[in-house]
Amino acid sequence: MKLLLTGFEPFLDFMINPSAEIAKELDGQQVGNYKIISRILPVDFSEAAHALSRFIDEVNPDAVISLGLAGGRNRITPERIAINCNDGVKDNRGFTPQDQKIAEDGPDGYFSKLPIRKFVQILQENGYPAEISNSAGTYLCNNVMYHLLHKMNMENKDCPAGFVHIPSSHELALTSPNLPSWSQRDLTEAVKLIVTCL
Amino acid sequence: MKLLLTGFEPFLDFMINPSAEIAKELDGQQVGNYKIISRILPVDFSEAAHALSRFIDEVNPDAVISLGLAGGRNRITPERIAINCNDGVKDNRGFTPQDQKIAEDGPDGYFSKLPIRKFVQILQENGYPAEISNSAGTYLCNNVMYHLLHKMNMENKDCPAGFVHIPSSHELALTSPNLPSWSQRDLTEAVKLIVTCL
Amino acid sequence: MKLLLTGFEPFLDFMINPSAEIAKELDGQQVGNYKIISRILPVDFSEAAHALSRFIDEVNPDAVISLGLAGGRNRITPERIAINCNDGVKDNRGFTPQDQKIAEDGPDGYFSKLPIRKFVQILQENGYPAEISNSAGTYLCNNVMYHLLHKMNMENKDCPAGFVHIPSSHELALTSPNLPSWSQRDLTEAVKLIVTCL
Amino acid sequence: MKLLLTGFEPFLDFMINPSAEIAKELDGQQVGNYKIISRILPVDFSEAAHALSRFIDEVNPDAVISLGLAGGRNRITPERIAINCNDGVKDNRGFTPQDQKIAEDGPDGYFSKLPIRKFVQILQENGYPAEISNSAGTYLCNNVMYHLLHKMNMENKDCPAGFVHIPSSHELALTSPNLPSWSQRDLTEAVKLIVTCL
Repeated sequence: MKLLLTGFEPFLDFMINPSAEIAKELDGQQVGNYKIISRILPVDFSEAAHALSRFIDEVNPDAVISLGLAGGRNRITPERIAINCNDGVKDNRGFTPQDQKIAEDGPDGYFSKLPIRKFVQILQENGYPAEISNSAGTYLCNNVMYHLLHKMNMENKDCPAGFVHIPSSHELALTSPNLPSWSQRDLTEAVKLIVTCL
Repeated sequence: MKLLLTGFEPFLDFMINPSAEIAKELDGQQVGNYKIISRILPVDFSEAAHALSRFIDEVNPDAVISLGLAGGRNRITPERIAINCNDGVKDNRGFTPQDQKIAEDGPDGYFSKLPIRKFVQILQENGYPAEISNSAGTYLCNNVMYHLLHKMNMENKDCPAGFVHIPSSHELALTSPNLPSWSQRDLTEAVKLIVTCL
Repeated sequence: MKLLLTGFEPFLDFMINPSAEIAKELDGQQVGNYKIISRILPVDFSEAAHALSRFIDEVNPDAVISLGLAGGRNRITPERIAINCNDGVKDNRGFTPQDQKIAEDGPDGYFSKLPIRKFVQILQENGYPAEISNSAGTYLCNNVMYHLLHKMNMENKDCPAGFVHIPSSHELALTSPNLPSWSQRDLTEAVKLIVTCL
Repeated sequence: MKLLLTGFEPFLDFMINPSAEIAKELDGQQVGNYKIISRILPVDFSEAAHALSRFIDEVNPDAVISLGLAGGRNRITPERIAINCNDGVKDNRGFTPQDQKIAEDGPDGYFSKLPIRKFVQILQENGYPAEISNSAGTYLCNNVMYHLLHKMNMENKDCPAGFVHIPSSHELALTSPNLPSWSQRDLTEAVKLIVTCL
């Protein structure tokens, strides 16, 4: 079976994005029941969802996990819900939405279609701190998660799909004194673990 | 017009609940266009929603604002969305739900029916730090907000209704070194301000 | 008796400095046994200590309390010790020291000569969260505290003298989402309280 | 040359202490110019300094690095100064000092005799977030650091000696949602790096 794994390009002042590093590292690997096929998404409200949609149509995956950086969080946080709202700081094209609907007629929220409780359990059992998050924010991460689940819903697909936030890597934290961080190696190992329980 | 204002009783290790103190202080006052009628909700998953429903039926309000304490937050945070999930630490009866639906056939989320952007603006303009929050958590605050919006939806009512989280009061922070806090006076003044822009 | 109360001018991205606002508000007032005489210090490593020294020589105070902003702290924190080190981000003249001694032959540290435990007790008893801090940092606040105690020591004076950090005011927190804050009124009242127990 | 490396036993609610895990892991290893000899200290105000003193007399080391856990910090923090004060929460024997001098006639503070700036540089260059800390607190870590430097001073020894705080390990963070954490492997590698620059 095929797993589409997405990461994001760098954004704001961050020089790299550890979610993209994980995606690149795991691209082409067989993990558990899945062959991983990785793609990188732009941090651009006008483009990210189109790119995701194209990747899904191109890869035709049996499962989708989108990864994003949550600078400031100290553990792996599978997201419980995406909400129908764009809001936040500037994206990479300088666009700053406020209180906008993502899909004019879409529902207010969509629960994740990933086994997020199992993700947390397998991570904790293997020594990686993890916790379910109840908000993916209203920036690109939530935008991509909402679009992903809305597309699945519109197309009546029922495969595992959702979003997982990761903490900063040590590399990013070197110049940001307030960021908790993990080694890139730990981040990648943690994502491999969650794929094995799909 | 009548505004139903609710606060919660104390919970966990907190000896008082500043949301209840605000409600008691403002009970019976005329603020802007509204006569405030206050009620206190129990921190009990099996009872809070019933109590809220009874209070609404009894008061027949033109607007509903539920208040709750967000220990750890440093500003007033009107909530954007309630989600269909009970999860968290023990309530006051010792019940600890995990990943439970609040309403079996309810939608995954309900957006607030309060003018939350206006709330933030009027607070900031008057010198009170405020920010929209994208998660009311999955504890009693979210539970009450979801029930409130679900009831409005089921009964086809369209009045302003939603939830606002407040930071800890100085009194609670005295014994909790990590809690940001405001004076109770500031908390009450801030809630009065948001009522004036309904 | 005369109390010299100092605050700092604004620095970094902060548009005002609540420590200066307190000093200005209390200047000339009689609080407890002390007539308060306030002065504002520059955020300038080359100038702050000279200014402080001039103010002391000019006022000839019976007690000295220097105030400074600790953006990020959530309560009043009387400082326990000043250390013989300048280090940190740019001051208002663009100077950035690293690991420099303040006084070449001075001791590594000087304990405060203020009754800091009593300060904490009176604040907490009156509902203002407070805690002794064990580090005034290595920026201007520590610099001024070290110079103050070094001067007292060199001149064999034994009057109460030391430093108290205050949290951000609401005004500063309006544009800084991560700053805990108090109202300016609470900050000023808290400083009045500590003067009464000198 | 011999390096005495100390860690602490577990304390408070922590089931393990990653500082002890590092010490045990590196005991007997040759790292850079030093043969590492590790010892574990008790979290006991009445005993820790005696134990440290005995270990120094027994091992007769050419350098001493004491390690301690700073739960809540997100990076390696070599300490700049130890202060002459015991204060804090209960130790493992239930003793809770307040504002006590460690050495009745000792100076208020002692600067570290380790090359702490070089430690930070080598860690950062190798991808491990690090920062000098200006306070080791007033609990056992500071107590041991002060005793170590006081003993060196009293005995006119001039070898490298001081204290380095480490963040929580993933293992501790599994049950403490607010703790930033590193893998034990990262913590141990970071300590090896600092030994190489002695």
